[in-house]
Amino acid sequence: MKYVIVGGVAGGASAAARLRRLNEDAEIVLFEKGEHISYANCGLPYYIGNTIEERKKLFVQTPVSFGNRYDVDVRTLNEVTAIHRDRKVVAVKNLHNGKEYEERYDVLLLSPGALPVVPPVPGVDLPNIFTLRNVADCDRIKAQAVQLLEEQAEAVIVGGGFIGLEMAENLQKIGYKVTIVEKAPHILTPLDWPMAAIVQQHLSEKGVRVLAGNGLAAFEERDSKLHVILEDGTSLPCQLAILSIGVRPNVQLAREAGLAIGEAGGISVNQYLQTSDESIYAVGDAIEFPHPVTGKPYCNFLAGPANLQARIVAMNMAYPESTPYMGSVATAIAKVFDLTAASTGLSEAALQRAGISFQTVIVHPAAHATYYPGGSPMSLKLNFSPEDGQVLGAQAVGKMNVDKQIDAISLLLKHKGTIYDLIYSEHAYAPPYASAKSPVMFAGMVAENIMAHLMNPIQAADLDQLIDSGEEFQLLDVREIKEFKSGTIQGAENYPVDELREFLEDIPQDKKTVVFCEVGLRGYVASRILMQSGFENVYNLIGGMRTYRLVGKHNVKPQ
Amino acid sequence: MKYVIVGGVAGGASAAARLRRLNEDAEIVLFEKGEHISYANCGLPYYIGNTIEERKKLFVQTPVSFGNRYDVDVRTLNEVTAIHRDRKVVAVKNLHNGKEYEERYDVLLLSPGALPVVPPVPGVDLPNIFTLRNVADCDRIKAQAVQLLEEQAEAVIVGGGFIGLEMAENLQKIGYKVTIVEKAPHILTPLDWPMAAIVQQHLSEKGVRVLAGNGLAAFEERDSKLHVILEDGTSLPCQLAILSIGVRPNVQLAREAGLAIGEAGGISVNQYLQTSDESIYAVGDAIEFPHPVTGKPYCNFLAGPANLQARIVAMNMAYPESTPYMGSVATAIAKVFDLTAASTGLSEAALQRAGISFQTVIVHPAAHATYYPGGSPMSLKLNFSPEDGQVLGAQAVGKMNVDKQIDAISLLLKHKGTIYDLIYSEHAYAPPYASAKSPVMFAGMVAENIMAHLMNPIQAADLDQLIDSGEEFQLLDVREIKEFKSGTIQGAENYPVDELREFLEDIPQDKKTVVFCEVGLRGYVASRILMQSGFENVYNLIGGMRTYRLVGKHNVKPQ
Repeated sequence: MKYVIVGGVAGGASAAARLRRLNEDAEIVLFEKGEHISYANCGLPYYIGNTIEERKKLFVQTPVSFGNRYDVDVRTLNEVTAIHRDRKVVAVKNLHNGKEYEERYDVLLLSPGALPVVPPVPGVDLPNIFTLRNVADCDRIKAQAVQLLEEQAEAVIVGGGFIGLEMAENLQKIGYKVTIVEKAPHILTPLDWPMAAIVQQHLSEKGVRVLAGNGLAAFEERDSKLHVILEDGTSLPCQLAILSIGVRPNVQLAREAGLAIGEAGGISVNQYLQTSDESIYAVGDAIEFPHPVTGKPYCNFLAGPANLQARIVAMNMAYPESTPYMGSVATAIAKVFDLTAASTGLSEAALQRAGISFQTVIVHPAAHATYYPGGSPMSLKLNFSPEDGQVLGAQAVGKMNVDKQIDAISLLLKHKGTIYDLIYSEHAYAPPYASAKSPVMFAGMVAENIMAHLMNPIQAADLDQLIDSGEEFQLLDVREIKEFKSGTIQGAENYPVDELREFLEDIPQDKKTVVFCEVGLRGYVASRILMQSGFENVYNLIGGMRTYRLVGKHNVKPQ
Repeated sequence: MKYVIVGGVAGGASAAARLRRLNEDAEIVLFEKGEHISYANCGLPYYIGNTIEERKKLFVQTPVSFGNRYDVDVRTLNEVTAIHRDRKVVAVKNLHNGKEYEERYDVLLLSPGALPVVPPVPGVDLPNIFTLRNVADCDRIKAQAVQLLEEQAEAVIVGGGFIGLEMAENLQKIGYKVTIVEKAPHILTPLDWPMAAIVQQHLSEKGVRVLAGNGLAAFEERDSKLHVILEDGTSLPCQLAILSIGVRPNVQLAREAGLAIGEAGGISVNQYLQTSDESIYAVGDAIEFPHPVTGKPYCNFLAGPANLQARIVAMNMAYPESTPYMGSVATAIAKVFDLTAASTGLSEAALQRAGISFQTVIVHPAAHATYYPGGSPMSLKLNFSPEDGQVLGAQAVGKMNVDKQIDAISLLLKHKGTIYDLIYSEHAYAPPYASAKSPVMFAGMVAENIMAHLMNPIQAADLDQLIDSGEEFQLLDVREIKEFKSGTIQGAENYPVDELREFLEDIPQDKKTVVFCEVGLRGYVASRILMQSGFENVYNLIGGMRTYRLVGKHNVKPQ
């Protein structure tokens, strides 16, 4: 049996190793057009920022060490240029010497990865505009970043996704003043605005400028300096620019070979990661696969799923149709200075696109017991189905323990878990690690209160709409007087929750009533008191002032 | 409707708050025999150690603030002394003035907690022997610990469970030299020996003496100094001793009222947390409940489940039989100096007691990407069913990210998840937080290799038995020569894995063969090479040298 693998980074190298462990006698040839295999792709921004100091740390395996251990014929700087499916051969170009040759396969695995999106704007070919995808890109950026660094040097990051934010932090770390440009209304689009707003504020506090809702129009060179020109005409002079708009599946080889390409633009595979040719499999960033929640194919561009696919595809290449892949819910995370931002499943925008109805809660629990030193609050947003409570997506931002919440929800998402599963989750609790109720339990409990009609939620944006509409309603700030005076929402009256019962007769029962507190808990208690005291139409502001302060339009400043 | 609640710490106070939110009109009376309600029980050791500096931080709510917010009649220093079920009243003693009175109930909730086990050994009533269960205990210990502190002051902790270890760290922190005494063969019995051994070694490194396999025999006063006398005659002079042997459910009130007590010694409840009297519910440390994996009732004494039970019982008290409780898998965690030790589900000992067959794997993965600074390895042990791969229990020890692994496995345990679910789990991956394969995935993959007969495991203890038996077999250390020379296992020959294929003809194929490396991965690769090259009987040492070095009996020192 002869296995040929195209691409030696995450997916390809892992699959080769597993294939060898499954079949000591097979011939395995691994082609990689770059110099390196199995390197630390996700570490590249941190090498640029000197967080990772030694370049050699990026290389998990060398072609020689990997070849020896797994008895694999590793051919770096050898590019596969065509697949001749009729003859079951691949055409290869040896980049060392330019020679072309063919290699026969019994079973072929494609792991060609993704390519950075380079927008066709004027000036995109000017010098000092970079994309970051592999070690060569990284070396290039690092060398130029060092050379171009001067007093007041500026860098512009085009695209405020996870990688863009990592690059922003690392370029600032080596001395650049950084601006992030994002065409969408806010950065970090896998997160909904109330969560992304926390990150955006943190970036500002750290001295990173964020220009959202303003796309890239062109690059220009003026007075021998690079300028990034935005759609609204803003011109950003800079030493260097990073394009981190996104990536697209690298499907050229597959397409030219006549393999099916799917609706999301990735290589089509079945549940065994087999392409439309039964002798050819594919994994990683180049494929598309149905999302476990929506059922619709998408490309996720994440290292974790690529590694898992590698293991699964090796099983199927050795034992056909033995091991189904079940898809990814797109769980992702990034460090953004002192914050961690993470998401799993579907955002509001993604749910709207998929036509799935949802309800949402935002909680701001402590990362661990408040009485134990060193804690800090986090914000967690949970999107769920109002019909059956199925968890649809979640996002969290905070200084610690954010990863743990998202991992737990990710696990449930893959099993079509519900908010009740969140409530019944059992976490390891001691004061240094957690509170007796974990953030995910807490979010689940709030969601259950909505499902059980114990509480009617209103989102910050909907409250703003209500205020703007001029419709008559009453707005009750149920925090302490001191808090009320430190800033509230336009039109709010103050009835501290612990005294609310005494004032019930002073408040009209037949009006629509919106209550709020700092994070939502006292608002919930207040709304229970009101709902059980004859008030007909009571809503509690989700996320409370802590969310509204960031995203609301009718903040009233401290008196 | 009149609800009466006995016990105002975790379970009782939470239930009262939820009851009020469900029913604004009910009368709710909360009795607590101590001074405080809803305090931070789990924070007490840290207050003794001054990690928590302000005493007031221990109090989440005061009786007054809680009473105001939830309109609850909170009566601290009022002890319920009897339940007269026929008349539906409780007898109460007001500890302020000694007066006794009765209080009527429609529905009663018992949340009396647990009592520390005080062994009936001679001298147990001597001064300066303490148990730690509530704020009063804590104040007493802290005051005495400060007063008794002198040059070379010693403290003895009897019982090496989670709380005992927390006390050891905190007493050392304020200046004591600490000895932990444990009757069982090792400390931390929810963990199996290969995991507990890591903690025991760490305690030694930190200057805490651990005497395991040696029970408490007596306390004596000699020359006006307290001595802890062990079963083997060892005498430990000390300034103070802490009894942290364990707790037992506080069932006296329930038993005297004729409520059913279960086989594990806790109050019997049904799935709605209702006792044998349909007007009386019970929650928290005082109850027993079936374990979701074994189906057998047990008492778990954990704050997390008590809080969840409180929410559930309030639902059932307001809406009978509305909300089933599903039990706890006993997920627990403790900080032990620089380490975190955590467990969920069943240990080997617990599985043996329950008559459940199991297989086990130990992995030592990195806590996050090795190329990103600040990481450290952890050790993770997974117990699973060899029949269907059901996850039965897990334990982890390490410096970081231990909680995250145990939380994920705990979630799966509650849903009768399998090792395949671990493999298919999807975690938030970026270099500061994780590796592309998470520790739980990694453990699941090793377990799958065993299930699929790709690898035969042998545990360190079984290898020792094999060596001791004198049975003929060969032992192959497949690490590099340098590693082999730094210490190996008695009788091992060195065949580095990357050269193993060249030496296959030199190694007898018909003998039983045990291979090992540092952590198990190269041993697995080597065992695959051997198994596919005609070797009949190949085993890979689980946990490799890293585990064997701690728990093996036939270590060979560096040459």
